[in-house]
This record gives sequence, C-alpha cells and structure tokens, in this order.
Amino acid sequence: MDRRIKNIYAKLSEKSLQGLIVSWPANISYLTEYTSRDSYFLLSKKQNIYFTDSRYIEEAKGFLKGIAQIKRSNGSVFEAIAQACKSLGLKRIGFEERYLPFAEYKKIQEELNKSAKLVPTYGLVEGLRQIKDSEELKKIKKALKITREALKFIPDFIKPGKKEIEVAAELERFLRYSGARSGAFDLIVASGPNSSFPHHLTSQRKIGDNEPVLIDLGVDYLGYKSDLTRVFFSGKINSLVRSIYDIVLKAQERAISKIKPAVRISEIDAAARQYITRKGYGRFFGHNLGHGIGLEVHEEPHLSGKAQDKLMPGMVFTVEPGIYLPHKFGIRIEDMVLVTQKGCEVLSGAVYK
Amino acid sequence: MDRRIKNIYAKLSEKSLQGLIVSWPANISYLTEYTSRDSYFLLSKKQNIYFTDSRYIEEAKGFLKGIAQIKRSNGSVFEAIAQACKSLGLKRIGFEERYLPFAEYKKIQEELNKSAKLVPTYGLVEGLRQIKDSEELKKIKKALKITREALKFIPDFIKPGKKEIEVAAELERFLRYSGARSGAFDLIVASGPNSSFPHHLTSQRKIGDNEPVLIDLGVDYLGYKSDLTRVFFSGKINSLVRSIYDIVLKAQERAISKIKPAVRISEIDAAARQYITRKGYGRFFGHNLGHGIGLEVHEEPHLSGKAQDKLMPGMVFTVEPGIYLPHKFGIRIEDMVLVTQKGCEVLSGAVYK
Repeated sequence: MDRRIKNIYAKLSEKSLQGLIVSWPANISYLTEYTSRDSYFLLSKKQNIYFTDSRYIEEAKGFLKGIAQIKRSNGSVFEAIAQACKSLGLKRIGFEERYLPFAEYKKIQEELNKSAKLVPTYGLVEGLRQIKDSEELKKIKKALKITREALKFIPDFIKPGKKEIEVAAELERFLRYSGARSGAFDLIVASGPNSSFPHHLTSQRKIGDNEPVLIDLGVDYLGYKSDLTRVFFSGKINSLVRSIYDIVLKAQERAISKIKPAVRISEIDAAARQYITRKGYGRFFGHNLGHGIGLEVHEEPHLSGKAQDKLMPGMVFTVEPGIYLPHKFGIRIEDMVLVTQKGCEVLSGAVYK
Repeated sequence: MDRRIKNIYAKLSEKSLQGLIVSWPANISYLTEYTSRDSYFLLSKKQNIYFTDSRYIEEAKGFLKGIAQIKRSNGSVFEAIAQACKSLGLKRIGFEERYLPFAEYKKIQEELNKSAKLVPTYGLVEGLRQIKDSEELKKIKKALKITREALKFIPDFIKPGKKEIEVAAELERFLRYSGARSGAFDLIVASGPNSSFPHHLTSQRKIGDNEPVLIDLGVDYLGYKSDLTRVFFSGKINSLVRSIYDIVLKAQERAISKIKPAVRISEIDAAARQYITRKGYGRFFGHNLGHGIGLEVHEEPHLSGKAQDKLMPGMVFTVEPGIYLPHKFGIRIEDMVLVTQKGCEVLSGAVYK
C-alpha cells in the first residue's frame, strides 16, 4: 500500500476514526496518484473504495489496481457510500468538512441512519500535501520550465494594437505545444489600467502605447501546477511605473531572503509588506503575499500576515507582492519558491524581471 | 430592482425566509449579472450585500451599483455575513445546501449564535436559471457561433502524426481570436482508442491512420457556455465505425424529434436509449442523454431516464447520445437545443454531422 494512504490511516487511528470519505478532487488525486474527477474515495484499513460513474469507470479500473476497489455509482452515490460503510462495519467515519456540501453530509448521514456517525475533519490530506516529495517536485519543475519558456516566447506579441485575449491565445497554444496538458487556471493578460485589477479577466482590450502588460500564467503538467507573473511593457516605461516596479521587486527579494525552515510564515509576508508600506503604498497591496501550489493552484500554506505556522522543508509556494493603483495600473511579480533544508530555492529560476 | 432578484424575494416569502445566502458563483453571477468569483451574496428585501475581498473590490463596485452594497471581507467572511444578518434583524436565513460546505454552514450558524437560524434551501436560483431569457439566448447563440466556426476550421489539423494536444491548442487559439474569453471547459480531443473514454483528458498521443477523432468543445462568451461534440476521421472510416456512427446519429434525431413543451424529460432520454438498445449497444451508452447549459456547462435540467419533470419553453440543453466500445473507439454526437413554444430549435445549427 502506498505511503500516502498509510499516512492517512495513521491520522485516522489518532482520531479514533475507522474510515474517511474524501470528496475533494485534488485530495483524491493525491492519494490515488490518478487525476480524479466526479468521484468519492472511501478510505479504510479493511478496504479502500473508489466511487465513480460510467464515464470514468474504464479509465479508473486501469489506474487504481491494487489501491482501491472501484464501485460504479449508478443510482445515488451517497447511498452507495453509506452502504459500503455499513458492509465494512465502520462506526465513526470522517469527512472533509471544508468541502463536503451540507446536503451531501445530510444524505450520507441519513442513509447511515444510526449505524454510524459522520465526524468532521479538517485538512488531513491537505496537511500531507504541503510537503512535496521528489516525484512531485519533478512535475512542478517541468510545469515551471514550460511556463518560463512561454514567458520568453511572448514579448514579440506584446505590442500596441494586439488584444489581451490574442496574447492569451498565443501563450496557451505555445504551452500546449511544449507538453503541458492545459493552463493551470484562466491565464491573465491585463494591459494598462486593467492591470490595476489583481484578478482581471482577460478581455478584448487592445494594448495601448507605452503600457504595462501584466501576465499571470500557469500550466498543468501531469496534474501539477505552476504560477508565475511578469509585467511587460509596450514601449517606454514612465518614471512612476518604474519606481513602483522597483519597490515590488525589492519587496519580493526581501521576502525571499527570509525563507528557511522554522521561520514563522507571517514573517515572510511582513518582510514584503513592511517594505511596501514604508514606501507609502501599503494600502495598495491588498492580498496575501503568496500561496502553496501543487495539485491545486492555491493550497496550503497561505502566506498571510496571520499565518502562525512555521516553514518546513519541502513546502512550495508563490511569493507575489503587488501594488495596484486603482484604474491606473498595477504591478505584481510572482515566483515559486521551495523551502530547502537550509534555506530556499527559487524554482522559477531566471526569467526576466 | 432587477426581475431576477425580485423572483427570489418572492420565493423567500413563500418559505418564510427573510434572507438568502448565495454562495454558488454561477448563482451569484445570474442574480447580479456580474461574473462573480470568491464572493458571497446576501439577499434580503432590506438590503442586498455582496461580500468579496480586496482583489475584486474595485471591479465589483463598478458593476454592482444599485444592486447591492459591497462589503470587503478582510477577516472572516463568515463573521461578516453573520454580522450583516444580525444588523438587518434577519431571523430565518436560507442557504444553498447543495453547495455550502459543512464547515461554512457551521461557522455562520455559530456566529449567528441564537439570533437567527440557517435554513437549507435547494435549487431556488437554479430553478429560475433553467428558463433562459432573450439576453441569455443571445450570448449562448454567440458562444455557439464561435464553436461552430472552430469546428469548421479544425479539419485541416486532424491528420496522422498530429498530437491531440496540438489540435486542442489550435482550437483554443482560434476561439479566442474569434471573440471568446476562454474555453467553457477543458476541451476534449480523443483519438482512436482514447475516444472510448467519454471524458478523456486530451493527451500527447499522436493521431494514427484511419482513426476517429472525437472533439468535445465549448466556449465561454460573456459568462455563457456552449458545448458541442463532433467526430472527425483521419482517413478512411471502417464499416463498424460507420455503422455505430449512424446509430448514434439516428438516436440523436429521434430524441430531438420528441422535444416540445410539456413532454416528460425521461421520454427524451428514452427515445435515444431505446433505439441504441434495440441496435444492441445499450450497455455501451452509460451516461445521461444531456444536460442543461447556460452560466454553467452542466446545469438543470439533466436529461436522464429518471427525470420526471416536464420540458418548458426557454430551456436549453445538450442532446448527446454516445456509444463507447472499451479500448476500441467511441462515438458521441452533441448538439444544443432550445425548447420553443411549439417544439424546439437546434441552436447549434448546421455543422457537419
């Protein structure tokens, strides 16, 4: 049996649980090493069962041999899950309270009737997922390599008159020809004033003269994600934009220089935020400094000013300070960092900043 | 105040609810006509409040003027929601039990303490969303137009040696240059045996000689989705493939010919399924006949053999019978249909079948 599943068994024992219903796709993918969609995964020492429907059944059979029994959920999957729990004689069964919708919780508990109790759990699998193993790092590095290449390829398209959406089209085409299955998320191309919206939806707007063009791009490589942001310019850079750019870049450097095991996460956020605040732009940096990344684009740990946990070797996250002057422009610079035994490694490596 | 929101107020009154917490993005987008992300929407006759974080606050302000007050959720959004419910004096507040995770339900109810009770509701907004108005139909038709053009453009790329993922890259590039913001979902290019997996993940596989190549493609146009499937061929079509293709096409025609108001939904599914079963392939058509589509790719109504509801004018859904011979090949043909006052209209119009 796989190490990841054994780790969960141990956590279940600690909590006197005999089983765990995993419903969050990324968590199922992590435990089964199979890209899971529209499925539920019941873990128990007696038997692991993977529930899915006819669309995926043939594919799942191939991938999950030796890991789980496959059950086709023709009728209600909740009935099927409850039935399986009863057959296995499970009495206390954990579920992922962060993800399981209220109605699904209710249905499964009703089906179980009084034979067993559903117990909320929080972050059991996500906790494990924070620390990447060497196989995961390989995939993340490959996703990053493709992303970097895409960012090196794109400057030719950043010119006045080109639409944001056309730049996005060229980027996605490039990354698929480079071996990625898809983008990791709706990539952002935000030109001029659009760059002042941190999560701008790429639009039909044409790039103007002498504008910043913010590109936030990630790819999915065998399920693992990358996420990088760079700002390009369609001509000359004016002095305000240049000075903001330099502040953001220095803030990022300060944060990265502090990353090593046992440092409190909030201190990393503070390193960037304090610098930006000192320069007078604190209120224009509204979001967290970064987020963990792996099977999901956003996962644990979140680099916020409130995060009291400490950094551990194997964590991978983004570091992405930004300054957004409403309706004028925004600058964000985002890289991905791995916490190593002694410090950190900027995984995104050398891309123009 | 907008008609959609008034409709919800009426439903709330029927259920003696003074407010509704809407958490499902597509439902929020429907009610606000603004593409909503990472937000919660509290509806009440006294005041509508839209909760979001710093990344979206500037954008939301612009779009939601006159519809809702905007609250920035700096700390816990659940605390903010509960606080707002208290301030407005709401006592019975609905929530979407199908979507709200157990943990969020628990947090909001705890914050409300005994001042108010959260009441599960099911499908209030989804019910309204089933019937498309003329504005919605315009967007859906535009999404379909782009999809059709993409399907007409792609045959040149369907040839031996081309990778599935490269075909996907060309399709997505085309649709973005044609005015779509993005694909509606991870588009499927499934060649040869891969086409036997109904939800194949587009891969690095190279198209072989004389193979079927299934393409399942949709686009997002101003939030509204399209979804079409066609099978192309990289050369000659052998007689088994041809006969299966004809069965699927006839099954689709039979189903479509039955679509008109007041017909039970299960009868539409049955029309296609019975034909395929009679031809001996019933067990190779494992999925539902189709699904509603609009702000989401999959929404109400679901065209299953169990659906007892009746068709109503304004519904839009896919009709997509398929036959999948495991590890050999699969054929699916998918169009989008609008229920009209007297019958139906195939919205996807003339694309090669």
